[in-house]
Amino acid sequence: MELNSVDTKIQTIGEAKISSPLLDERSAVLAQSFVSDDDGILLNLRLNDIHKAREEGQPSATFELAGPRENIFFDPSKLRCAMVTCGGLCPGLNDIIRSIVLTLHYLYGVRNIYGIKYGLQGFIPGYGHDVIDLNPGLVGNILNVGGSILGSSRGAQDIGEIVDSMERMNIGILFMIGGDGTLMAASKIADSIAERGLKISVIGIPKTIDNDIYLVARSFGFDTAVEVATQAIRAAHIEAEGYPNGIGLIKLMGRHSGFIAATATLAQQDVNFTLIPEVDFDLEGPGGVFSTLEKRLAARGHAVIVAAEGAGQKYFEDAGSERDASGNIKLKDIGLFLRNKINTYFNDKGIDVSLKYIDPSYMIRSLPANPNDSVFCGFLGRDAVHAGITGKTKLLIGHWNNNFVHVPMSLTAGKRKRVVPYGKLWSTVIETTGQGSLKNN
Amino acid sequence: MELNSVDTKIQTIGEAKISSPLLDERSAVLAQSFVSDDDGILLNLRLNDIHKAREEGQPSATFELAGPRENIFFDPSKLRCAMVTCGGLCPGLNDIIRSIVLTLHYLYGVRNIYGIKYGLQGFIPGYGHDVIDLNPGLVGNILNVGGSILGSSRGAQDIGEIVDSMERMNIGILFMIGGDGTLMAASKIADSIAERGLKISVIGIPKTIDNDIYLVARSFGFDTAVEVATQAIRAAHIEAEGYPNGIGLIKLMGRHSGFIAATATLAQQDVNFTLIPEVDFDLEGPGGVFSTLEKRLAARGHAVIVAAEGAGQKYFEDAGSERDASGNIKLKDIGLFLRNKINTYFNDKGIDVSLKYIDPSYMIRSLPANPNDSVFCGFLGRDAVHAGITGKTKLLIGHWNNNFVHVPMSLTAGKRKRVVPYGKLWSTVIETTGQGSLKNN
Amino acid sequence: MELNSVDTKIQTIGEAKISSPLLDERSAVLAQSFVSDDDGILLNLRLNDIHKAREEGQPSATFELAGPRENIFFDPSKLRCAMVTCGGLCPGLNDIIRSIVLTLHYLYGVRNIYGIKYGLQGFIPGYGHDVIDLNPGLVGNILNVGGSILGSSRGAQDIGEIVDSMERMNIGILFMIGGDGTLMAASKIADSIAERGLKISVIGIPKTIDNDIYLVARSFGFDTAVEVATQAIRAAHIEAEGYPNGIGLIKLMGRHSGFIAATATLAQQDVNFTLIPEVDFDLEGPGGVFSTLEKRLAARGHAVIVAAEGAGQKYFEDAGSERDASGNIKLKDIGLFLRNKINTYFNDKGIDVSLKYIDPSYMIRSLPANPNDSVFCGFLGRDAVHAGITGKTKLLIGHWNNNFVHVPMSLTAGKRKRVVPYGKLWSTVIETTGQGSLKNN
Amino acid sequence: MELNSVDTKIQTIGEAKISSPLLDERSAVLAQSFVSDDDGILLNLRLNDIHKAREEGQPSATFELAGPRENIFFDPSKLRCAMVTCGGLCPGLNDIIRSIVLTLHYLYGVRNIYGIKYGLQGFIPGYGHDVIDLNPGLVGNILNVGGSILGSSRGAQDIGEIVDSMERMNIGILFMIGGDGTLMAASKIADSIAERGLKISVIGIPKTIDNDIYLVARSFGFDTAVEVATQAIRAAHIEAEGYPNGIGLIKLMGRHSGFIAATATLAQQDVNFTLIPEVDFDLEGPGGVFSTLEKRLAARGHAVIVAAEGAGQKYFEDAGSERDASGNIKLKDIGLFLRNKINTYFNDKGIDVSLKYIDPSYMIRSLPANPNDSVFCGFLGRDAVHAGITGKTKLLIGHWNNNFVHVPMSLTAGKRKRVVPYGKLWSTVIETTGQGSLKNN
Repeated sequence: MELNSVDTKIQTIGEAKISSPLLDERSAVLAQSFVSDDDGILLNLRLNDIHKAREEGQPSATFELAGPRENIFFDPSKLRCAMVTCGGLCPGLNDIIRSIVLTLHYLYGVRNIYGIKYGLQGFIPGYGHDVIDLNPGLVGNILNVGGSILGSSRGAQDIGEIVDSMERMNIGILFMIGGDGTLMAASKIADSIAERGLKISVIGIPKTIDNDIYLVARSFGFDTAVEVATQAIRAAHIEAEGYPNGIGLIKLMGRHSGFIAATATLAQQDVNFTLIPEVDFDLEGPGGVFSTLEKRLAARGHAVIVAAEGAGQKYFEDAGSERDASGNIKLKDIGLFLRNKINTYFNDKGIDVSLKYIDPSYMIRSLPANPNDSVFCGFLGRDAVHAGITGKTKLLIGHWNNNFVHVPMSLTAGKRKRVVPYGKLWSTVIETTGQGSLKNN
Repeated sequence: MELNSVDTKIQTIGEAKISSPLLDERSAVLAQSFVSDDDGILLNLRLNDIHKAREEGQPSATFELAGPRENIFFDPSKLRCAMVTCGGLCPGLNDIIRSIVLTLHYLYGVRNIYGIKYGLQGFIPGYGHDVIDLNPGLVGNILNVGGSILGSSRGAQDIGEIVDSMERMNIGILFMIGGDGTLMAASKIADSIAERGLKISVIGIPKTIDNDIYLVARSFGFDTAVEVATQAIRAAHIEAEGYPNGIGLIKLMGRHSGFIAATATLAQQDVNFTLIPEVDFDLEGPGGVFSTLEKRLAARGHAVIVAAEGAGQKYFEDAGSERDASGNIKLKDIGLFLRNKINTYFNDKGIDVSLKYIDPSYMIRSLPANPNDSVFCGFLGRDAVHAGITGKTKLLIGHWNNNFVHVPMSLTAGKRKRVVPYGKLWSTVIETTGQGSLKNN
Repeated sequence: MELNSVDTKIQTIGEAKISSPLLDERSAVLAQSFVSDDDGILLNLRLNDIHKAREEGQPSATFELAGPRENIFFDPSKLRCAMVTCGGLCPGLNDIIRSIVLTLHYLYGVRNIYGIKYGLQGFIPGYGHDVIDLNPGLVGNILNVGGSILGSSRGAQDIGEIVDSMERMNIGILFMIGGDGTLMAASKIADSIAERGLKISVIGIPKTIDNDIYLVARSFGFDTAVEVATQAIRAAHIEAEGYPNGIGLIKLMGRHSGFIAATATLAQQDVNFTLIPEVDFDLEGPGGVFSTLEKRLAARGHAVIVAAEGAGQKYFEDAGSERDASGNIKLKDIGLFLRNKINTYFNDKGIDVSLKYIDPSYMIRSLPANPNDSVFCGFLGRDAVHAGITGKTKLLIGHWNNNFVHVPMSLTAGKRKRVVPYGKLWSTVIETTGQGSLKNN
Repeated sequence: MELNSVDTKIQTIGEAKISSPLLDERSAVLAQSFVSDDDGILLNLRLNDIHKAREEGQPSATFELAGPRENIFFDPSKLRCAMVTCGGLCPGLNDIIRSIVLTLHYLYGVRNIYGIKYGLQGFIPGYGHDVIDLNPGLVGNILNVGGSILGSSRGAQDIGEIVDSMERMNIGILFMIGGDGTLMAASKIADSIAERGLKISVIGIPKTIDNDIYLVARSFGFDTAVEVATQAIRAAHIEAEGYPNGIGLIKLMGRHSGFIAATATLAQQDVNFTLIPEVDFDLEGPGGVFSTLEKRLAARGHAVIVAAEGAGQKYFEDAGSERDASGNIKLKDIGLFLRNKINTYFNDKGIDVSLKYIDPSYMIRSLPANPNDSVFCGFLGRDAVHAGITGKTKLLIGHWNNNFVHVPMSLTAGKRKRVVPYGKLWSTVIETTGQGSLKNN
């Protein structure tokens, strides 16, 4: 319902008055794929909702379709572009960098493309990171390589300094590939640009291996992450089966949303307990995880548990003050926490268990994109260029109802896509694991 | 436009009057995911089309959503189900078999589930194939195994005999997993059942590694196929680069639709020529493949060509009468045809080339599903059971605009989904390969 | 030198007087591969050593070759065999189980083959584990499956009870697949059998993913382990390169011997520091790891460290008394120890580093054997059967100078194969990493 | 026996009088791994043979060990080296190139290293191929890439022109990586160098994916090839099982020696017939392949056949004159030949079979080396440098009884390592497949 009334209007930095170079002879075939701003796809395609909205006089919100436009804003021969990758590594970063560079270079004839090193740090002179001159020769062979050739970093930087830096470099389009925080920064950068009256387009490509950006159905790297997460589950299952009372415990990525944990559970159906941030559970008590696990071991002799890293945070609420020998605050790590708690539980009961713990996170994030993600990243990069060169700004390239679309940054800020407790995904997880509610009453 | 007016009404074999066992205490959480027949999702979500349709007084067609219903038709304790896999192997067959069996057994309590061996042959007494009693123990570990535990076969069988066989076995739901021909047969079987006044539901799950079923956005196994096809392209590229005037030629699956060839081209961007059935091309002449290939070799020293098996069939129109020494009609194999023609072309010109030919088809079809396909197959199998047990019939479990839906068999019969020549996929292929039109004028 | 004088004589439980069934018509071709006990291969093939030995009147020790013999001791039709897998999982366990069962069944016609569940526990009635009847149908498809279909367990059991159990079951050959401790137990079991005057042959197959059994050049699973360890190194390298002062830290298996760490370092040459148990190093001080790491970061911006789990144990010598909240003694885990120490070192110096820690152990041990290990395991299993059925006992199936050989259990007991500090392997690691001595003076 | 008396003396181009730079402080640890020319390892380590040889007054031949020497011949600061890769692609070429370059550069301080493009063509001015300046930056990241960065070509070139070219470039060491023909050429180049009185060392690294170089126990790329060949077998097996009378037919590499076919058969034990060049078989007749295959199908319903490409060449002896439509002589391709013959055989008998043919050759040769091969290639490259810089010439870097050794080129020329029909490998294949003799009578 709420989907019908969101404001999906896209901002621009000026009127697109230049004929697209795709209209020239060489690319004539491509011109046939031009997209019009007037067209759009419905956010909500459930008929009942649409009918209700109509009755109530509500509009049916649509997303602008991504893709090449007949007219563009920037003169490619004079345009300078910059791109930056921020936050944690994610499969597909290099695919997107490559796609943006090749599209700018070959399709539009842009010759000045700068790679900002190590995330937003690269804009700040104090860090002394060089800027990389990007061209097809440099990015041609990075498709099957994990990580980001630009490097990355975490943490915010001063918005003013970033815009100063872009002014000095005379940037026309800034491509920002990053997660929640990065997109917030992108939004502020776009606002600061507007305040200064600059003609810089800011295009975001949402990066979240957890797949939790609001109004973005799919984010790149997620499919690759699930693929490898299933290998960890398989390993845990074999270790569990291999010993009397064997328990395999896997911590998977997912700080706020359990999509990786839930999807990997369905991909490799050896999981007996899936714990995600969206669904509350108890550890102690007759209906809790420990007691249910004990029954499972008694019945079947082994068990596999998948925990998203953000699951069960209620157990850490009073943990803020614990520090280790070096004075560091102890990590609120659900994986290690469960490992210790489960071992203690069975130890106290005098039951021998053999628990094996697997945390594959850093083996996943650094992978090259699998072919599915690779194709997806190629489209994201191309559509980011098409959007930016048309003078559109403060938008994300999203994917909704199977179409690449323009999503205003304001729509996703401060919200998050989450696993719906009674939706198809989670109810199928419940059915597959047979785990029940894991709640006392 | 045409999408707005199709008839998507689903047939039933009787009224669903029995309360679903998912309503019982144990499964209460699942009951919250019940779907209503009244709800549906729009086939066409382009706003312009919808407006035009409304102006013209046309309806906006919707697909019924797949999923569990509150009321079912069959009494699970008395229900007997059969399933059969037909045609070529495809990654994911065992995932679907497993999903159907587990859903019938654990969710609905069905105890009589029969696997028909070797496709439709298994219904015909003359072949003497046994029927397999399917249960969770038998299918529990088939997730990571390629092929089909039921086996398969090609070719039609007598519809009457098939229905006879089902009558003898007292089958209530028949699950048919197969391609175009199988779904045609399924349709006829459903008609024959109706004529005889039997209460047998026929549920199809479309199997087409080529991904070419009309009104089905995605079919299982396709993602796995693309994943491995890219490995063949990578190999061909390395062989091509390794020699002076090296040419790598890969034949990929795709009898009528070039989705695998086009998608794999985008996944592993080393391809210089992609040939598919939907887009005409010339071999000879100044704009044709050979001449363009010669220019590419002169400029870059190597080239990679991907041909879908159905590409360039116009070159075989007069080939029907050629026979080999054994009297067999020569295969109209575009791969071997191109290999010979290209070698002859350059040989005649006195240009040394080193052409390596790769046909990975049978290494692809027999693979286990990758995790993405595995999850997808799990949903297909579950939704097939939900549909059948409700008494719905003559439908496919499809996937459209990111939802699992019920597609009447009549809608897809005799039609085919094809790569749209000026759509986003193909225009991106044209852009990536830089191959141009490959036509003389 | 010492290799020339070891006692390699193999014990038997009686004279082999029965003609091998391999002499029958069906297997005639196999009879041509019979091996004689008189033949053997030199342990030491360095000419200088052999000359010196000859001058000093020393013999040149040889290992008996493994393989089928013309005469056997047991009557296959009456023989009952048992097999057991002990200790940690290792790629290839199922390959060996399968190979033993198929060789006993098809080649010698043995029909009674018992699988003992969960390691030595399976012999002890108190645990209540069932015995599995092994046959070709059961083991035919376990080749590509990780773990052990028999399960495993750690820890010793009473030798007398084990032999009692074998007497009750009327076992003729016991196949024991396990590591150091298991082979010690095997040796004691063989002694107890001899004391009781029983006719039971005990054949060991050395399992050590660390590849550290003395006088056994190669052990199964090691090649698979290195293969996957390199993936962890690649991931760590990409994470390290991705951030300013990025550090990738990988803990690999190797309690007493650093073969996995050293070999994986050579396979994926992104490692800058390899730490193994055999070679001492300092952490603090001008020549130590921290200081050298700091220089590396200053020069190159990132670094990769591989630590075998047994490396640097000197840092734990006074750690025995530390206990965690639950009262458990803290694990002396070099990986977590280094992670904390490195972070503290740079934190104290005010240098921002980004350290990513990877511990892939449980994703490695549970893998199926790769093809190389699979072939190797096949030979181990077959030769174990050939040795046992001939009445030989108290031996291991080893691999030395490229031949499968019989190694008396007494030779390997209490010793360990270790990386030679100035040998070819380690000096190449030193050269590849450029790490220097990592010692203060 | 013959192994005891071969002449394994290594030629040199002059006395090694310069102290190795490995003696300097920085590399002091490496100096401890120096190898002496006086030392060597026995070719034959079977005790019976050694005794017999001694009785007959024969010597026991030894191979010189590969590795660094205390004294070298060339002055690294003035040395220029060239390297070339010839013939078919093979996993590991880039590993060897990288290893040679890094060892020359970092260990010995050599700064002029030239890569000759496209095999021996690169020496011949007429082809116009550039020479590549090789350095650590260029080769640092080629470890995980298939093919050869130098490219390759087939066919002989004029020896005189090659040596002319080296004289002009002032080359001191030539590294030749190639197969049989290349090593023959290397031998002639070394002779021509000797005749001209030049000081050029010629070092060969035997490349043969078939693993068939005489007196070389293992060649690089073979392990990787077997790994992927097993995937083809698995695919063929699944296709065969999937249909009534299903037959999976795989052609594997092996022109003269069946090591890949035999080893892959043992790695993936689904093969029922393995055909190799070394072992004669009949197709027709009561004991032949077709009749045995028919029995297998009748008994089990499916079958898998592996044919090495050089198997059954007797069936092509009179095929020389057959030509295709373009006038080309028809390929004597055992795979396609068997496919047609088997189909015809069963067609004539009125038996429906479903035969699937897989030829994975070009997907194998272009792969990157697996970790095992990668480590192996690293040693080959390093030892090639150690040998060349010492002034040794006309030798191969071989691997024998688990040691890297110097093999005089003269020893392997014109000979070939082949599968021994009654040896351990083949008799195990016979046992595993159960195929019997496949001969009439």
